[in-house]
Amino acid sequence: MEGIGIVGAGIAGLHLGLLLRKHDVPATIYSDRTTEQLGGGRMLNSVAHHHATIEREQALGVDHWAGEEYQYFGHHHYLGGGPEPLVFPGFFKAPSRAIDYRIYLPTLLQDFVARGGEFEVRPVQAADVLKLSERHDLVVIASGRGNMSAMFPRRADKSPYDIPQRKLCVGLYEGVAPSEPRGVTMSVAAGHGELLEIPIYSAAGHVTALLFENVPGGDLELLAEIKYDEDPAGFEKTILDKARQYHPATFERIDPAKFRLTSPLDLLQGAVLPSVREDYTRLPNGRYVVAVGDAHVVVDPVIGQGANCASYSAWELGQAIIDDPNFDERFCQKVADRRRNRVHATSDWTNLMIRTPPPPHLPQLFLGMAQNQAVADEFTENFSYPDLQWDNLATPERVNSHLARHGMS
Amino acid sequence: MEGIGIVGAGIAGLHLGLLLRKHDVPATIYSDRTTEQLGGGRMLNSVAHHHATIEREQALGVDHWAGEEYQYFGHHHYLGGGPEPLVFPGFFKAPSRAIDYRIYLPTLLQDFVARGGEFEVRPVQAADVLKLSERHDLVVIASGRGNMSAMFPRRADKSPYDIPQRKLCVGLYEGVAPSEPRGVTMSVAAGHGELLEIPIYSAAGHVTALLFENVPGGDLELLAEIKYDEDPAGFEKTILDKARQYHPATFERIDPAKFRLTSPLDLLQGAVLPSVREDYTRLPNGRYVVAVGDAHVVVDPVIGQGANCASYSAWELGQAIIDDPNFDERFCQKVADRRRNRVHATSDWTNLMIRTPPPPHLPQLFLGMAQNQAVADEFTENFSYPDLQWDNLATPERVNSHLARHGMS
Repeated sequence: MEGIGIVGAGIAGLHLGLLLRKHDVPATIYSDRTTEQLGGGRMLNSVAHHHATIEREQALGVDHWAGEEYQYFGHHHYLGGGPEPLVFPGFFKAPSRAIDYRIYLPTLLQDFVARGGEFEVRPVQAADVLKLSERHDLVVIASGRGNMSAMFPRRADKSPYDIPQRKLCVGLYEGVAPSEPRGVTMSVAAGHGELLEIPIYSAAGHVTALLFENVPGGDLELLAEIKYDEDPAGFEKTILDKARQYHPATFERIDPAKFRLTSPLDLLQGAVLPSVREDYTRLPNGRYVVAVGDAHVVVDPVIGQGANCASYSAWELGQAIIDDPNFDERFCQKVADRRRNRVHATSDWTNLMIRTPPPPHLPQLFLGMAQNQAVADEFTENFSYPDLQWDNLATPERVNSHLARHGMS
Repeated sequence: MEGIGIVGAGIAGLHLGLLLRKHDVPATIYSDRTTEQLGGGRMLNSVAHHHATIEREQALGVDHWAGEEYQYFGHHHYLGGGPEPLVFPGFFKAPSRAIDYRIYLPTLLQDFVARGGEFEVRPVQAADVLKLSERHDLVVIASGRGNMSAMFPRRADKSPYDIPQRKLCVGLYEGVAPSEPRGVTMSVAAGHGELLEIPIYSAAGHVTALLFENVPGGDLELLAEIKYDEDPAGFEKTILDKARQYHPATFERIDPAKFRLTSPLDLLQGAVLPSVREDYTRLPNGRYVVAVGDAHVVVDPVIGQGANCASYSAWELGQAIIDDPNFDERFCQKVADRRRNRVHATSDWTNLMIRTPPPPHLPQLFLGMAQNQAVADEFTENFSYPDLQWDNLATPERVNSHLARHGMS
């Protein structure tokens, strides 16, 4: 038997593989893409890593982007829809950063291989997992691609939506001046969706990701459908027009003369169906397979939690492997227990943020944030701790109790 | 609202109350017995506290029995039933101690009151809990007495037995010379049950608890039924006769001329039905009530885990209260998540130890302990960590893997 087999070379697979190698556990990552394919091609996401994730990167020795130039320090909120927009910042206790995954993933894959990890380029389908399970002590599914997720039943009790709640359009752009201090701008156009404006490092240098999260049926839904390749100038003009009308806090920093997509491949359009799946499954041969990352939980990217959650979940799984390498149902249940609170909170929080219309306690909290910097900072800091965020946000009573602790009863 | 209401003045209620007071959380303990009644009357148990529990006592500032005279250092095993008995010791990393609860509980109750805790002597029945819930932010049931446990449904999936598996007879005795080094003797008479011989501090000084755990239908079952009060000398003679025949490792240190029960009240006979119950329940008014200690999980005393588990569970509950005082279902689920592994492992391990006949991997492990001091020491140390014990013991495969790690494959 050859240690741990990991299907998927995303952040979950790589952080798990690197943690295992740090403890001299043999690990093999399977991917259907070569390092070159991971590094080229269409953009994968626009994810930021928050400091809890960066601390794991430091522990793994893969903190390659420690410089201040990569950092940002908090969130600039622009909440439209009321008589006056609510405009206020919130600050982290330690900075976040966003690195294009076409740079990030190949770099960590090189680290993994340099540290004795095995990397095999081969497409793995659900039907192949039984055979893999005979080769490895444990197989971990760290990819939601293709039909892999379907191995793990979707949990109706934790998956409130049957269709995607946002139509997405994310691209990398030049011509957007950074916010001051450097941060992510979270702009909400009530009834139409959100714009996340993210300072990100890509092959084009320090550029800006604009992630339009558009409510189906709203005025910005078309952004997920118009074709850049058919009319680049028209696409960019539509983006500008919609930003001007619905997301002015970002638009005011755009120089239309310089505004352009950095490359035709630096654009991703689509939609995500949020899903929480079972933690593990039992194969016909009696062996267990554990899900991590997108194979386990898919969240809408509106608050950028997917990758951070995948890293956390991989870390907990890796610690469990190191603590108790007996890969039976007890092992799987312990993994589920140790990651449940934060992982489910990530999903619950994200699902609340994309509910239409928002439940009243969400704008109530936003109003509290606008009025009290400590409340805004706690919300912002808790992008590293979704379980603590959910403690403050899960119910109207919890929002009341949270605001009361800040003297706002 | 007056903080936390705790029903029950056993170790779970007291450790919880003391932890809350340490953090200035208002707490009220309800008991149907006065301090004097707790301190007088029939003996309550013969429980030892292992070092994980003692560390909590140190943190709570109630480590009143720190002297070496109270300590013992490990277990002396005598496993009969084979051609030759297996006789070997196992050692803790830090000592354990047993204090008569008629001394222990009143002392901690005084500490609780001296630190601002409220103590109310009043009988509380399940029907009274609704009213209590209107008085306190949260009500905790820390007593399995009367009908309190029935508020929390018994979990069939974690409660394998429908009737008690041992008939119990525990008493405090003079005339038993301590083992060397001082320890608990665990004697197994295959098919008939166990004797736990425990150095314990009571009102009579440093004496010996003999806890006979007798298999129903076996040769020692009568020990749970014969009446001391009707014939003290005959009772003591029967104890001696059974010890001579079935538990010789203890009998050889008994001086029959000095052997006597220290008091007619220093005897407890009966039986325990092992049960795991739900962690919490929802009252008709929408408020939640949490179970801890015997109200949550009852284990047979054969490995002395009940009180240690109750203390651990109270500690986790107390930390959860301090971390997030929003007493809704999310709170209850977080409590369940954080204590599940160790609490369920305590129950699963205990239930394995009293299965008749024992599954083959249990004597396999005992043989490994007899052959390898490190295996015996790990088993003994894990009386503080039942979750780690269960990692080694849950299945035949886990026992094999555990022994293999000790070079015994």
